[in-house]
Amino acid sequence: MTLNKHTWCIIMAGGLGSRFWPISRTDNPKQFIDVTGVGKSMLQLTFHRFEKICPRQNIVIVTGEQYADRVREQVPGLLPYQVLSEPLRRNTAPCVAYAAAVISQIDPMATLIVSPSDHAIFHEDKFIADIQQAVQTVALREWIITLGAQPLRPDTSYGYIQFNEKPSLPRALNLHKVVTFTEKPPLEMARQFIASGEFYWNAGIFVWQLSALRKAYEEHLPAIAESFFSLGLSTPWEELERVYSQCEAISIDNGIMEKAGNVHVMTASFGWSDVETWDSLYNVAKHDSNGNAIFSSNVFTYNTRNTLIVTPQNDNKTIVLEGLDGYIVAVNQDTIMVCNRKNEEMVFRFASDVELKKLIDNK
Amino acid sequence: MTLNKHTWCIIMAGGLGSRFWPISRTDNPKQFIDVTGVGKSMLQLTFHRFEKICPRQNIVIVTGEQYADRVREQVPGLLPYQVLSEPLRRNTAPCVAYAAAVISQIDPMATLIVSPSDHAIFHEDKFIADIQQAVQTVALREWIITLGAQPLRPDTSYGYIQFNEKPSLPRALNLHKVVTFTEKPPLEMARQFIASGEFYWNAGIFVWQLSALRKAYEEHLPAIAESFFSLGLSTPWEELERVYSQCEAISIDNGIMEKAGNVHVMTASFGWSDVETWDSLYNVAKHDSNGNAIFSSNVFTYNTRNTLIVTPQNDNKTIVLEGLDGYIVAVNQDTIMVCNRKNEEMVFRFASDVELKKLIDNK
Repeated sequence: MTLNKHTWCIIMAGGLGSRFWPISRTDNPKQFIDVTGVGKSMLQLTFHRFEKICPRQNIVIVTGEQYADRVREQVPGLLPYQVLSEPLRRNTAPCVAYAAAVISQIDPMATLIVSPSDHAIFHEDKFIADIQQAVQTVALREWIITLGAQPLRPDTSYGYIQFNEKPSLPRALNLHKVVTFTEKPPLEMARQFIASGEFYWNAGIFVWQLSALRKAYEEHLPAIAESFFSLGLSTPWEELERVYSQCEAISIDNGIMEKAGNVHVMTASFGWSDVETWDSLYNVAKHDSNGNAIFSSNVFTYNTRNTLIVTPQNDNKTIVLEGLDGYIVAVNQDTIMVCNRKNEEMVFRFASDVELKKLIDNK
Repeated sequence: MTLNKHTWCIIMAGGLGSRFWPISRTDNPKQFIDVTGVGKSMLQLTFHRFEKICPRQNIVIVTGEQYADRVREQVPGLLPYQVLSEPLRRNTAPCVAYAAAVISQIDPMATLIVSPSDHAIFHEDKFIADIQQAVQTVALREWIITLGAQPLRPDTSYGYIQFNEKPSLPRALNLHKVVTFTEKPPLEMARQFIASGEFYWNAGIFVWQLSALRKAYEEHLPAIAESFFSLGLSTPWEELERVYSQCEAISIDNGIMEKAGNVHVMTASFGWSDVETWDSLYNVAKHDSNGNAIFSSNVFTYNTRNTLIVTPQNDNKTIVLEGLDGYIVAVNQDTIMVCNRKNEEMVFRFASDVELKKLIDNK
């Protein structure tokens, strides 16, 4: 299969990933970690997936300045424009504008796939087919296609997309016009969304032509469009710092998707999870007959059920668990965490407590 | 205080310690481990305790051949006769006979304190006073004094000593003649023992003159007496192997104490635990306000109660526990164990399962 030279991918790899503590931390966020125990980091998995969709040199990774070396280490041999460092965190709208502006200098005819770097995709063949359908669809239309995943539970940490019942095209039953976007609804609302059957989870993957993207930015985020699309292929760092320090911090969902009238949602036929929390990893993982999800090579469980067990791939520690039901056991080089799955939001507190103690100990 | 040059101590340090898995194992049994997190191994604690009772050169450690180097490493500067290696495991009666035979070559007037190497003693000053009283008492009498600890619960893993209500001596109300020894009684029997008020736990510490010891062996274990007391100060290894391979494997409790008519029990005024199991360590440990016993410098607990947490002293791992009640969390360099305290006897199974997998993996 030849890859279309006008298909480009923007991978957003600037996340801090503190929800996955202790495996991911600010100095080692989730996208750089082999969360699912397959021997590749989330970023590597994402990159290799897109190598099957567009030419390797058409994949651009945007990340924080402090992570740029990490990106080049994990994906060796990238050209300079393929790793874009952001001087400041300004959410996703500036991030995508920056990458699109750089790509526009190389290929004004580009079709862009915008993707997070740290989500889990199951059934890669279906993912590739979906994305290709989206790319072909937007080639003929000034549409923004967003990928929507079938919601499995009333998760309040996800974005929800309400869609028009009528398919957008007579021959593409998996494409519907977007009616509303709702970020992180309260539980009762999430329940109603699911019960109605009119909502998808927002998978955070967008497909559109560069020209459509630019038009959308110019209409809905004119200040960002103006400062980013006037940048050249290689912008001096000071200039970039100036642009970022002056620009609004806003997500692409809030800044574009909620306002644009031409957004269509494509039903993902692949399996998807943002794997943003331990519990979401548990939910997407394979379970053994006791309901345990084990991402670790050397685990012995006894009377243990519904428990998620994660160690780094290269770690040879033996883990023996007896009498646990519904826990998260996460181990890295220097930390061991055992936490009831129901209380997984406490990892924020764990992380800050541990950091605080380190600060005090070092004083 | 000058130490009596005829007071000797035999420390039995040949245990395999598999009940403390994963911290202790056959290649690293409990006596060599800093179980209680004070920076010294159980053997070192025991040795230093006896240095306050008898001259350093009067302390003899008997251990398995494979552990002799470990002993010399942990207690440096010992003379050759102070570390006696046993070629085979033959329980405690041959072990004590061997050490007594060696000591008899140096000091026929010796008074002997026989002690395990891996028990926990609390209130060291009281321990020293008790032992000194016992030493003084046997100096004048051909008695065997065994130390008895007040039983705290119907523990079925301990030995029980039934004592005569009447004190053995008018002025020593803490000394009673022994009526029976019972090793590891069934639970119902242990309950009755405790209810009766006539029983102590057998702390496994014996005080007697060398001459009384020899007489007891000659009477109750004549074969062992004959082969061991004919040995010289430094026996060729082959000769020792021959003696051990031919001798009966029997405990000093079964072989001597249960049969001898001159055994008296002294009520220990110190705190004692054989610390033979995780739960016994939990029971003797200091508890925080949530009932947690923490032998670890870097532990964060949340909603966690009645849990024992042990890491090696020199280990800097951070341990975060949430939502555990009544567990054992034991961590060493290569293994992490979380086990319900109620099922702690399963550590035997864990150990063998882990060893088996290692064997299979290495094939």
